[in-house]
Amino acid sequence: MNFASDNTAGVHPAILQAVADAASGRAMPYGNDPWTGRVAERLAAIFETEVAVFPVATGTACNALALSALTPPWGAVLCHAAAHVEVDECGAPEFFTGGAKLVPLPGADGKIAPAVLQAALGRAGFGVVHSVQPAALTLTQATECGTVYRPNEIRALADLAHDRGLAVHMDGARFANAVVTTGAAPADLTWRAGVDVLSLGATKNGAMAAEAVVFFDRERADRFQFRRKRSGHLFSKMRFLSAQLDAYLADGLWLANAGQANAMASRLAEGLSGLPGVALQHPVEANALFARLPGQAIDTMGEAGFRFYRWPDEESDVIRLVTAFDTTAEDVDLFLATLRSILTAG
Amino acid sequence: MNFASDNTAGVHPAILQAVADAASGRAMPYGNDPWTGRVAERLAAIFETEVAVFPVATGTACNALALSALTPPWGAVLCHAAAHVEVDECGAPEFFTGGAKLVPLPGADGKIAPAVLQAALGRAGFGVVHSVQPAALTLTQATECGTVYRPNEIRALADLAHDRGLAVHMDGARFANAVVTTGAAPADLTWRAGVDVLSLGATKNGAMAAEAVVFFDRERADRFQFRRKRSGHLFSKMRFLSAQLDAYLADGLWLANAGQANAMASRLAEGLSGLPGVALQHPVEANALFARLPGQAIDTMGEAGFRFYRWPDEESDVIRLVTAFDTTAEDVDLFLATLRSILTAG
Amino acid sequence: MNFASDNTAGVHPAILQAVADAASGRAMPYGNDPWTGRVAERLAAIFETEVAVFPVATGTACNALALSALTPPWGAVLCHAAAHVEVDECGAPEFFTGGAKLVPLPGADGKIAPAVLQAALGRAGFGVVHSVQPAALTLTQATECGTVYRPNEIRALADLAHDRGLAVHMDGARFANAVVTTGAAPADLTWRAGVDVLSLGATKNGAMAAEAVVFFDRERADRFQFRRKRSGHLFSKMRFLSAQLDAYLADGLWLANAGQANAMASRLAEGLSGLPGVALQHPVEANALFARLPGQAIDTMGEAGFRFYRWPDEESDVIRLVTAFDTTAEDVDLFLATLRSILTAG
Amino acid sequence: MNFASDNTAGVHPAILQAVADAASGRAMPYGNDPWTGRVAERLAAIFETEVAVFPVATGTACNALALSALTPPWGAVLCHAAAHVEVDECGAPEFFTGGAKLVPLPGADGKIAPAVLQAALGRAGFGVVHSVQPAALTLTQATECGTVYRPNEIRALADLAHDRGLAVHMDGARFANAVVTTGAAPADLTWRAGVDVLSLGATKNGAMAAEAVVFFDRERADRFQFRRKRSGHLFSKMRFLSAQLDAYLADGLWLANAGQANAMASRLAEGLSGLPGVALQHPVEANALFARLPGQAIDTMGEAGFRFYRWPDEESDVIRLVTAFDTTAEDVDLFLATLRSILTAG
Repeated sequence: MNFASDNTAGVHPAILQAVADAASGRAMPYGNDPWTGRVAERLAAIFETEVAVFPVATGTACNALALSALTPPWGAVLCHAAAHVEVDECGAPEFFTGGAKLVPLPGADGKIAPAVLQAALGRAGFGVVHSVQPAALTLTQATECGTVYRPNEIRALADLAHDRGLAVHMDGARFANAVVTTGAAPADLTWRAGVDVLSLGATKNGAMAAEAVVFFDRERADRFQFRRKRSGHLFSKMRFLSAQLDAYLADGLWLANAGQANAMASRLAEGLSGLPGVALQHPVEANALFARLPGQAIDTMGEAGFRFYRWPDEESDVIRLVTAFDTTAEDVDLFLATLRSILTAG
Repeated sequence: MNFASDNTAGVHPAILQAVADAASGRAMPYGNDPWTGRVAERLAAIFETEVAVFPVATGTACNALALSALTPPWGAVLCHAAAHVEVDECGAPEFFTGGAKLVPLPGADGKIAPAVLQAALGRAGFGVVHSVQPAALTLTQATECGTVYRPNEIRALADLAHDRGLAVHMDGARFANAVVTTGAAPADLTWRAGVDVLSLGATKNGAMAAEAVVFFDRERADRFQFRRKRSGHLFSKMRFLSAQLDAYLADGLWLANAGQANAMASRLAEGLSGLPGVALQHPVEANALFARLPGQAIDTMGEAGFRFYRWPDEESDVIRLVTAFDTTAEDVDLFLATLRSILTAG
Repeated sequence: MNFASDNTAGVHPAILQAVADAASGRAMPYGNDPWTGRVAERLAAIFETEVAVFPVATGTACNALALSALTPPWGAVLCHAAAHVEVDECGAPEFFTGGAKLVPLPGADGKIAPAVLQAALGRAGFGVVHSVQPAALTLTQATECGTVYRPNEIRALADLAHDRGLAVHMDGARFANAVVTTGAAPADLTWRAGVDVLSLGATKNGAMAAEAVVFFDRERADRFQFRRKRSGHLFSKMRFLSAQLDAYLADGLWLANAGQANAMASRLAEGLSGLPGVALQHPVEANALFARLPGQAIDTMGEAGFRFYRWPDEESDVIRLVTAFDTTAEDVDLFLATLRSILTAG
Repeated sequence: MNFASDNTAGVHPAILQAVADAASGRAMPYGNDPWTGRVAERLAAIFETEVAVFPVATGTACNALALSALTPPWGAVLCHAAAHVEVDECGAPEFFTGGAKLVPLPGADGKIAPAVLQAALGRAGFGVVHSVQPAALTLTQATECGTVYRPNEIRALADLAHDRGLAVHMDGARFANAVVTTGAAPADLTWRAGVDVLSLGATKNGAMAAEAVVFFDRERADRFQFRRKRSGHLFSKMRFLSAQLDAYLADGLWLANAGQANAMASRLAEGLSGLPGVALQHPVEANALFARLPGQAIDTMGEAGFRFYRWPDEESDVIRLVTAFDTTAEDVDLFLATLRSILTAG
């Protein structure tokens, strides 16, 4: 039973079928194929606006490429201190941007508060030659803590950023989960709230390896194709990236998958909150939760075959549990029952 | 009928099946899965030596990452003037190496001659602070002209390179085709001839998107995982890259596919050489051929629905024809018959 | 009366004379001149060990080049949160290192405490592919707060760093001031305490524009000449950099200059500590001090023609006062008398 | 007697005096000083237009910084195959531009012919995602062969470049020599002929270490200050760079110095052309000349104490002779007399 990460899940059958359907016959390379065109159409419909779309295969590439279009090498990218770009990409944003600086901001539950952003902008040294120049704000949606920004929260942060000339990026590796949680229109969570570029994830939510850089401000996409090529992220047989995204976005699969993952996280949260000695660390709003447990119980659960990470490191008594599109109620209930018996036995 | 590129082909059924078989169930991410381990074992057997293997998804990433492990930013990479790294990767090697310089060398039929390499090394300014420092030689196998280096040719070049402290890289996007042509052991075409790192291609030869950086000199691989991650080329669901390579290398599929492509290129060459006004430009030793045709005939073939590129650009009366694992004798014969009727009618 | 920075000072006459003496006649370029050789000899004597020396013209170049020799692009450089490399070089370290990450550490009075370093190393993710890899520790001596590390403090930090494989760099833009304050042998403040590379400043202490990257671990200097050239910091007429350093290091001028600056800072501190409403912010151990003043008094002093900065920005009621080799007791006394009259009048 | 390079010369007394005059007293740092303002005024007068000026200390920095403002990382910079940026800067342009590609063009006497440029632009792959995108043309004036472009030659090349959207840079390390040779107005050799940015040299022509990036298209200078700072080329005590340039441009010193150097090169050329077995390689139009000599004579001249380089390397029987502002008729005549006696003795 694997709660270690949503990236340990396999592929949704509909996405696999789409890849298989694309596999025979010839197609022009590098995106000049029908699948890639269809992805752009689907996204335009979903986001209620024309977009420029660039499929890539990994979330790190998606984020780092997007940021590289938003900041000069002497720029600064403001992010939450726990953001994936800051702590989990081995410096990819620095590599792709030519050495821009990530400025980590604190914030409860993985979210940046407007006052914190405002203070950071206030001390940033705009126009001072000795200071890196703030160029972009990046928000993670859903956050690394399993929480979700509401449209008005995004708008407040984006307004502050735009007022000082910063672009706004959203790391949407788990964007679908946030859409399900808020019930908001995708447009209301992005461009209508001020997001200029979205990293739209699919890999963690049922695809093999497929993400998309989505530009709402299409002028910023002008030379983006060269960045993607130059970093080795332009696929010759692009149809196999696009076929994944095409199936992911068709018939609401992306939301159905996220809905299942979210529901299973809620079921876990509900069960955990009734257990003695267990303390949830953040509101559970997407498909990840963090719970403090007796250290002994953590060990015993691991020995029982459940997979998860202590967080943020092996010394911690907090565990992270992540659900995915293929997590079942039986999985959750078995986890809860096992833990209950351990805790009550202990 | 598409002879434009081997990257317009689809996926071999056995590779597709391997992906499908890998799609269900959970697996640990980032290469900690059984498929990835199996790829390393297969390559060790094929190359008769232990290797360090890093699957990636594109040829550009494979080459640029490999070169970045071989040269400092102030280094020079010697390559053929027609090499993919020099003309078709939008500066990816420069990006990944932090600005190293590619030094293009001339050479008939896409191959570097030892005397040309020797002269380049002679004027290179080793140790001179104003000069970029030669750090690597890269050879393309099969070449961009559809020719193939023999083991002794590689050895001669590698010896010259090693004598001056350069590492030797092989761009093997079409390595399988060269193995088939030469009948040589893969080891004899690589490490036994002095190749330190190989970019092993599968995408053009039946995979969806799968290549592998193969280090024969495993010490050079020491920190390579950080390079791959930092450039966004570490896949979370790595099993889907590795499953492709696993099937590709199993049961000789890689050589069977290349054999079919090579045979179809030979069949094309044989047919073309009997046509009036047609002149082959290079020996046909792999799966690509270049032929000079009357310009009018080129246009008419295009109108008849055959896909190919004029080479090197739209002004040229030379066309490039590329075959793939799925090119059939019927495809070839139809092409030849149509061209014959055009040429004789004209 | 300028207390804004030691970089507003002119040039010491002996250094100017050395430049003039070097100005006539021919000399071989790029450091193949007698002056440059002499600088290396002087430094070897001063530091009681053979060193590899690379003169450059700015402190930013000196630090960024030195760090680029100590970290790979995927590395992390641990520094104090107020360090010049972190806040005042517009991302130069990121540029020169190819995108390494600076990790700012907190610490009172501009100094890093061993426990803070140890904790940072503990959570650093050594060997984890998603994490930048700690590669260097950089210490500022004297610090940005005008304090000074003692040899045993440096040793404690360097030991922690070396234990985890990090190199140790010292930003010695004001190294002479620290030597004077501690009375320690230069060797005891550097290599004997574990410093691998020193950025030795002269510009702020009487030169026109001259610094030196000093490698105690000379193996690290192996390819450094290429880094310097490639960044445009190799001077053709190097003698004019070296003549400055030669005069700076001859006859103890560097320590005499720093001694004067330190003495004037102490005189300022002593005077200020007797004034009502004035609070020094840090121990005054070098040539800079920070004092909280009534905001109105700050404005009035500015109107009276005294130059200094509010710190860290224009909103602050703390001012920074920096003395230099040419600051006189009269300058200090006039400042103090003026401020006293303002404060007592107000 | 040193004919090895103009960078072996010392400093002109007027420039040294200007530095000495600037050395005492306080001045605001980073260019906020009177000297720097005066340089901008002098250049505006000399070039008959407003310019944006950025003093730096080395020619490599000047060129690499200028080019980095003209090309994206995926851009190409077209240059002569012998250009300093291509062969003598250890990859500095690649470093500063984030990995742009230099495309070397052939051309007699160090000059690019319009037809060669046109052909290069024709095959450049504008808009093709696999190709680096031509972004700038750089011309060296005077050239590396000691020849000079006339205004109409520059105009023809600049028009071709501008028609395809490329910016035009001029490496004017020896710009003064070209002004003297042509007798043209500086404006006619630069912006009126289509040059967007000039690297204006002074170091080789009498300064210690001073160059200036001069933007005629001032919009391109918008964020340039950050590039300069970030690369360590913003001097805190900028007055000492600017004082050099101020004196250099005052009272026609820059042209007087270049005039002397040019005259001595002409004197050398005239003398050499009358010697048996000596063949000049290029028209002598500035302060450098290249002559083929009997190999034995070259050795003997070296033993006699004359300094020069065999060109392009130690195997060559061509020598390069460079004159400077301080080369005298006696120097030249002694060289010629010695060589004559060697040649006639042999």
